[in-house]
Amino acid sequence: MADILDRFFYARTLAIVGASSDPAKLGGRSIRHNQQLRYSGRLLPVNPSVPMVQGLPAIASIEDLPDDVDCAVVALPAAGVEKAIEDLAKKGVPLAVILSSGFAEHSPAGAAVQARLVSRAREAGMRLVGPNSMGGMSFVNAMSATFTSISEHEGRDFPALGAVSIASQSGFIGSHLMGVLRDRGLGIAKWLATGNQADVDLSDCIAHYARDEVTRVIVVYLEGAGRADALRAAFDLARERGKPVVALKAGRSDLGARAIASHTAALVGDADVYDAVFRRHGVIGVASLDELADVVAALDTGRLIDGRRLGVATVSGGFGILISDVAAQHGFELPELAPDLQTRINEAYSLATTRNPVDMGSLVRFDTAVAALQDHGYDALVFAAGHFGLVTRLAEQLYAYVATARDREPERFIAVVACLSEAWCRKFQQLGVFVCEDPARAVRALAAVSFWNKAAPDYAASDIPDTGFLPIEGSVALESRNERGARDLLRAIGVPVVEDILAKSGAEAAVAARRIGGRVVLKIVSSDIAHKSDIGGVRLNVDPSEAEAVFDDMFQAVRERAPGAHLDGVIVSPMISGGIETIVGVKRDAVFGPVVMFGLGGVFVEVFHDTAVEIAPFGRTTAHALIHAIKGYPLLLGVRGSPPADLEALADVLCRISVFAATHAEQFESLEINPLLVRPDGVLALDALVAGPNAVARSMSADATS
Amino acid sequence: MADILDRFFYARTLAIVGASSDPAKLGGRSIRHNQQLRYSGRLLPVNPSVPMVQGLPAIASIEDLPDDVDCAVVALPAAGVEKAIEDLAKKGVPLAVILSSGFAEHSPAGAAVQARLVSRAREAGMRLVGPNSMGGMSFVNAMSATFTSISEHEGRDFPALGAVSIASQSGFIGSHLMGVLRDRGLGIAKWLATGNQADVDLSDCIAHYARDEVTRVIVVYLEGAGRADALRAAFDLARERGKPVVALKAGRSDLGARAIASHTAALVGDADVYDAVFRRHGVIGVASLDELADVVAALDTGRLIDGRRLGVATVSGGFGILISDVAAQHGFELPELAPDLQTRINEAYSLATTRNPVDMGSLVRFDTAVAALQDHGYDALVFAAGHFGLVTRLAEQLYAYVATARDREPERFIAVVACLSEAWCRKFQQLGVFVCEDPARAVRALAAVSFWNKAAPDYAASDIPDTGFLPIEGSVALESRNERGARDLLRAIGVPVVEDILAKSGAEAAVAARRIGGRVVLKIVSSDIAHKSDIGGVRLNVDPSEAEAVFDDMFQAVRERAPGAHLDGVIVSPMISGGIETIVGVKRDAVFGPVVMFGLGGVFVEVFHDTAVEIAPFGRTTAHALIHAIKGYPLLLGVRGSPPADLEALADVLCRISVFAATHAEQFESLEINPLLVRPDGVLALDALVAGPNAVARSMSADATS
Repeated sequence: MADILDRFFYARTLAIVGASSDPAKLGGRSIRHNQQLRYSGRLLPVNPSVPMVQGLPAIASIEDLPDDVDCAVVALPAAGVEKAIEDLAKKGVPLAVILSSGFAEHSPAGAAVQARLVSRAREAGMRLVGPNSMGGMSFVNAMSATFTSISEHEGRDFPALGAVSIASQSGFIGSHLMGVLRDRGLGIAKWLATGNQADVDLSDCIAHYARDEVTRVIVVYLEGAGRADALRAAFDLARERGKPVVALKAGRSDLGARAIASHTAALVGDADVYDAVFRRHGVIGVASLDELADVVAALDTGRLIDGRRLGVATVSGGFGILISDVAAQHGFELPELAPDLQTRINEAYSLATTRNPVDMGSLVRFDTAVAALQDHGYDALVFAAGHFGLVTRLAEQLYAYVATARDREPERFIAVVACLSEAWCRKFQQLGVFVCEDPARAVRALAAVSFWNKAAPDYAASDIPDTGFLPIEGSVALESRNERGARDLLRAIGVPVVEDILAKSGAEAAVAARRIGGRVVLKIVSSDIAHKSDIGGVRLNVDPSEAEAVFDDMFQAVRERAPGAHLDGVIVSPMISGGIETIVGVKRDAVFGPVVMFGLGGVFVEVFHDTAVEIAPFGRTTAHALIHAIKGYPLLLGVRGSPPADLEALADVLCRISVFAATHAEQFESLEINPLLVRPDGVLALDALVAGPNAVARSMSADATS
Repeated sequence: MADILDRFFYARTLAIVGASSDPAKLGGRSIRHNQQLRYSGRLLPVNPSVPMVQGLPAIASIEDLPDDVDCAVVALPAAGVEKAIEDLAKKGVPLAVILSSGFAEHSPAGAAVQARLVSRAREAGMRLVGPNSMGGMSFVNAMSATFTSISEHEGRDFPALGAVSIASQSGFIGSHLMGVLRDRGLGIAKWLATGNQADVDLSDCIAHYARDEVTRVIVVYLEGAGRADALRAAFDLARERGKPVVALKAGRSDLGARAIASHTAALVGDADVYDAVFRRHGVIGVASLDELADVVAALDTGRLIDGRRLGVATVSGGFGILISDVAAQHGFELPELAPDLQTRINEAYSLATTRNPVDMGSLVRFDTAVAALQDHGYDALVFAAGHFGLVTRLAEQLYAYVATARDREPERFIAVVACLSEAWCRKFQQLGVFVCEDPARAVRALAAVSFWNKAAPDYAASDIPDTGFLPIEGSVALESRNERGARDLLRAIGVPVVEDILAKSGAEAAVAARRIGGRVVLKIVSSDIAHKSDIGGVRLNVDPSEAEAVFDDMFQAVRERAPGAHLDGVIVSPMISGGIETIVGVKRDAVFGPVVMFGLGGVFVEVFHDTAVEIAPFGRTTAHALIHAIKGYPLLLGVRGSPPADLEALADVLCRISVFAATHAEQFESLEINPLLVRPDGVLALDALVAGPNAVARSMSADATS
């Protein structure tokens, strides 16, 4: 078995270390579950103190276990875990699931123990789930290795075997989702809580679900990713296998991130970066448990939405309006029904509203509306009956219409927006339709299904940049405090940088100015002076004929106001005007490594925070998506008659920066080009700041405000 | 009875015109309802064809009705309605509720009939509800006058008598909400569907609920308001009586607005304006039926939230994180628990997370967390137990803790976030706590409760502007196409306008420029030329000594390029720089009349649509709120070392404009000052455009871009 999680989800021999006779206890509950589930594998309770555990003969010690244990669940107090792992390692057990908590999530001492567990397991070739994991269940294998209380839910059973699998860092949330999805009438294939993710993490779990035979929809609850590359690869694998991933990222806010530290001790990373990762890999990001359940229920129908055109039939104009509002908000269209189809509806009911939404006022002749919408050919159909669904004769009527529609179009996505009893809800779901009580939630879920279908493969993993354009070889001089370092670096990357010439005297300044041609900017070079313009160290709009005089005047002024400063000379550069100021940055995300940030410069970034990020590296498709993602995008297309900016040149620079950031990630902390002027005929960096591990390099600054 | 709706909600004698023996029919259903409800008033079915209707003696005609009918329900086909209203008017019945549809919502012919119904009723002093109304119910009076199917809901009953009253334009939505709220365990006092609102509208209904004895929470579903002033007055009355109004405005999008036209034929108005009205009058605006139900359930507890500090205890770290994220999003704070209280929790359970959210991992010793949060004194408490609520022994445990907390603090707002059976849910609700399954929805509802409590009275109706500052008397010359009309108007309103002098010759231009002092702008005056700068009709940055020459040169240039244009002369105005460009506009909303729009100018309004609106007129408090509402607000406070803008002067101008807009609403269509420069020491209008009913007046334009 190549996949270590096969040992868990298809375990034929399962040992419970710390097995308890009390089915309410941590070490007792899974034994009860397996009896309830009629687990067909061998269940081996390890307990030195008693002869029998819940009717099964106890095994006195790990040593006494047989040699073919697939997986051992460790349900001991924290203090006993290290010894147990040692024994399991000796025994050659391939996988241990540690339910115990009190490790990295609890204290530095706990973190140290956790590190020792991992290193001992690695030595022995044993894999670990947890610690601080709630374990999991495999309905494919009718097996439980968890202390979830789901079996005790009043009047409810375990979920049925189905096509949804859950990977969750939090055990409680994973278990909760299992219950919530069950109560929505969905079946579950597998779930696993990864807890502290000392070894096995969400990416292993997602990759397992992507490869398996039963899973069709993958649910992920994550606080902080473990191995970022593995996670992204797992997302791609799922997409490749045609399985949508629905992810709820918790800890988006500072408050939430603070709460994570003491929960699963995960590195949190930036919420915007997660969004970028989700977008890039076609993962459906959701914001709440509710939304997650809706989206999963919609996807569980197995039907896709290959467009934005909704056809809506309703028994209430109000519902039609509410659905229209949410549809518009999510970018759906409600094209008008063809005139002949409208006529057909009007012939059936003269007071009907026929355009789309079609409002029949009641379920009388509703079938006419359904058929007309199908004849028109929308990408998805929504039938809204609201509380009529609670009236048995009306539910029957609606069911008949929907069943007919399903027969006619087996693959069309159909949503039924209605209040239904559990029994009726299941009947509708068996037709492969999505049932949702609230119209706004229903349409939101449709939008997610449609997003997943649209997320184009060329915008995902296959947008691999052509690194051939990047001439950087070996190390880059980032360590020196040379002001020209950042500029040289940008030029090496292939970013056009404003021309500048160092002048040591007035005469040299005059020569430089004539060489540049046109009006110039003069700026003092000195690593001792932070704010040059404050002491007269910057002169704008200088005529070349005056350059020598201005040089002398400026040098004297600066000498007087900053007597101690060492002056290296003056930078002469052209006076630049026009173009749109943008900002391009690279920063390192705690989880995903280097990311490229893009936005409009000046107040747009400072006040409006109008920026977007993408994980480095990326190619042109992603670069254009990044440019498009900012709200100020229309400015780049030209407003008030100004010409459009050169977006190809901008995309090229963003790609180059992203490749540099990815390939030289270890050599610098951050990089910022501010501003990068985007002009109708190319881009031009006016100023840049690069922070290496040990130093900061700032480029020449030719802008008017420095 | 001063309030006409007393005739409906407390009807002692109710006539059903078009009463049917079939309890499934429009005219039969309410009779069945009243029998089920044991209505104690007199129920009089009018039907000429049968002797008995559902066990009641039929009355042959409206003429034969007794003289003390409070309210007549008209359940006839559309064709019979006009005759029935005529007969009811003759009979002197004070109120008719018309269930029939096929009027203004259907066709122009239907609209004409509807107009006749109203005028006949007015003549007779009779009031009308509908047409196209679903009627309503009064649980206070155990009375039904509607054909809702709620009585047929499988395994469910009518809602219990409670404190929530519903006013809905759509009957189906009103009826649906009644069912949804019932299924949330809430009681209903009254509901009425206003339909086409030919006479009685939502404002009558809201005002009735505001004044009555039983209603504590008012629910409003609106598509388009009827009488805007009455609606606003009703909102204020509700607020004055301490009753929160929760409003769902449908038709926010173009798609939705389109759908309204054929539903209740209401004037839609602008969604942003509704938001402004809601904000101004302390109405809680919600975006979906789901959110509405959550918020109403939270308010139905009768407890308020008087601050932003949440205390959270949870059995799951994941839930704590999810709650933290949503709390942050809604502006709540989660201050850390006092150290001694944290110690107390840790003594009870060493693995607890104690800061806030307090994570106890289970319900064991959860009472310690609850008590500690109460001792700390948060503004609201959230207890999250998720699916544990479905385990009977855990629900019991949680109930005991919450009951103790309620005893200690009878008025504290407490939310229980848990999955609960219906029976358990009711038990918790009887403690006066808010129960919600989803953490995100729970916190969103808390935010609404907190908003309602905070909406300050001085920001609502009492912010009445001091009209004394406004010197405008009589009519304003808006009809002339004189370029100076808009400028004169602004000056009359009290808005500082850039100085400008009309010069007819080069010599006059020179005099004007010297009088202004400093560099000036020269601009051609001609009503024949739209884009003056395109043909050289604008000269910037002119030295006064060159004004005469520039005048001559410009006149000649314009003559050559626009030979047919009549030139009135040249406007000389100072060259202005500095300050922040803003835009102030007045437009007329279809429902609410004149509104004032404010935003940053240039690309901020064009690309970022960063504007906010307020209903005119308003005073300084509202003006400052309007200024604060735009995203670019920090720009006005000064960024990058620029001085703060003069917000007092800006607020003053906004107030003046708003009062002018309100008092002269009939005299102009729209007004736009663009740009209004906001400087550190006052504001200055550079250009303005006023469109009257018959003409457009444009002010002098002294900006650099025109």
